[in-house]
Amino acid sequence: MAEDTLDTLEATIRARRGADPATSYTAKLFARGRGKIAQKVGEEAVETVIAALTEDKAALVGEATDLMFHLLVLLAECDVSLDDIRAEIRQREGVSGIDEKAARKA
Amino acid sequence: MAEDTLDTLEATIRARRGADPATSYTAKLFARGRGKIAQKVGEEAVETVIAALTEDKAALVGEATDLMFHLLVLLAECDVSLDDIRAEIRQREGVSGIDEKAARKA
Amino acid sequence: MAEDTLDTLEATIRARRGADPATSYTAKLFARGRGKIAQKVGEEAVETVIAALTEDKAALVGEATDLMFHLLVLLAECDVSLDDIRAEIRQREGVSGIDEKAARKA
Amino acid sequence: MAEDTLDTLEATIRARRGADPATSYTAKLFARGRGKIAQKVGEEAVETVIAALTEDKAALVGEATDLMFHLLVLLAECDVSLDDIRAEIRQREGVSGIDEKAARKA
Repeated sequence: MAEDTLDTLEATIRARRGADPATSYTAKLFARGRGKIAQKVGEEAVETVIAALTEDKAALVGEATDLMFHLLVLLAECDVSLDDIRAEIRQREGVSGIDEKAARKA
Repeated sequence: MAEDTLDTLEATIRARRGADPATSYTAKLFARGRGKIAQKVGEEAVETVIAALTEDKAALVGEATDLMFHLLVLLAECDVSLDDIRAEIRQREGVSGIDEKAARKA
Repeated sequence: MAEDTLDTLEATIRARRGADPATSYTAKLFARGRGKIAQKVGEEAVETVIAALTEDKAALVGEATDLMFHLLVLLAECDVSLDDIRAEIRQREGVSGIDEKAARKA
Repeated sequence: MAEDTLDTLEATIRARRGADPATSYTAKLFARGRGKIAQKVGEEAVETVIAALTEDKAALVGEATDLMFHLLVLLAECDVSLDDIRAEIRQREGVSGIDEKAARKA
């Protein structure tokens, strides 16, 4: 079975964690630290929101991809994996469906 | 082959798009409109940033899951699929690797 | 001379810092801690962005006021005053104008 | 009576609205449009949140000033004035205090 693109991306990101900041944007992000990585997640979320509201579909694909990428870098920085997120999704579904869980939280 | 958890979640979200807002949090989100959905994406991103910086790993898993969920709702609202995001990731990798692309953008 | 409305608001916020959380929203915010206050600043900024992009002027006035209010609570929480912000603005102007400074930063 | 620093800044920002983008950061922001200005408000809010949580007081003063500056640019872009915000604050206080109003809203 072919590995999921998101898992491939996650593996690539992790492999860059100890790499030379001069040769990779991802390695540079890790080198700048958690605050900077978190900042990028916030910024890309804002850009995703704006692309959605200005109805620029191509921009939305680009910004949502940037958001996903930087979120995966932040999770790697904090030793959380995409599989941890998948497990959380399944656990919520297992109880009463993610949207009911989300509703109860709100 | 087992379907990916994220794709299952995306399918669930799409199925709720026309459902009764009274019975589902997701249907209610769609009913409130794109502005409200986008707002939730921004809010969950802020909460993800804060969980990462306060080093609360359990909270980070929860907030990142909330962010992923609401991002998928926003993408569905805008007729963009998770596969569109995967295609964008692969295209960037195909050219010169996503982190080089991200570097050039920045 | 009449005190500026923003300074009056700042003084009110500071006076609530040790108050009973049960009787005041501001006191409750302080009691919930810096992470929660910071989260509110992020959320109100997202709502301000959305009000501006959806061209809802009345909503923008409300959201920008909420943002200003929660920013003043966050500054008070961190022992930074509105006068510190004013001093920073004047210092930037004194050098070469705030927009040139901002331009150099960007 | 000396004009408030924030009003001076607002007047400076408005004066740059029609200026040559090549000579002023503010004029350039206006030229790039509302989406870009709103994006900067969101980004500076995220940076303010991070500075507050990493307990970097000097950075907080800088980021909060950047946030205030870009908020004033966004308000100017939307034909909302700082006095509109002051009026909203006073109106909330006139009813039952801003924090009660905020509490009811929340």
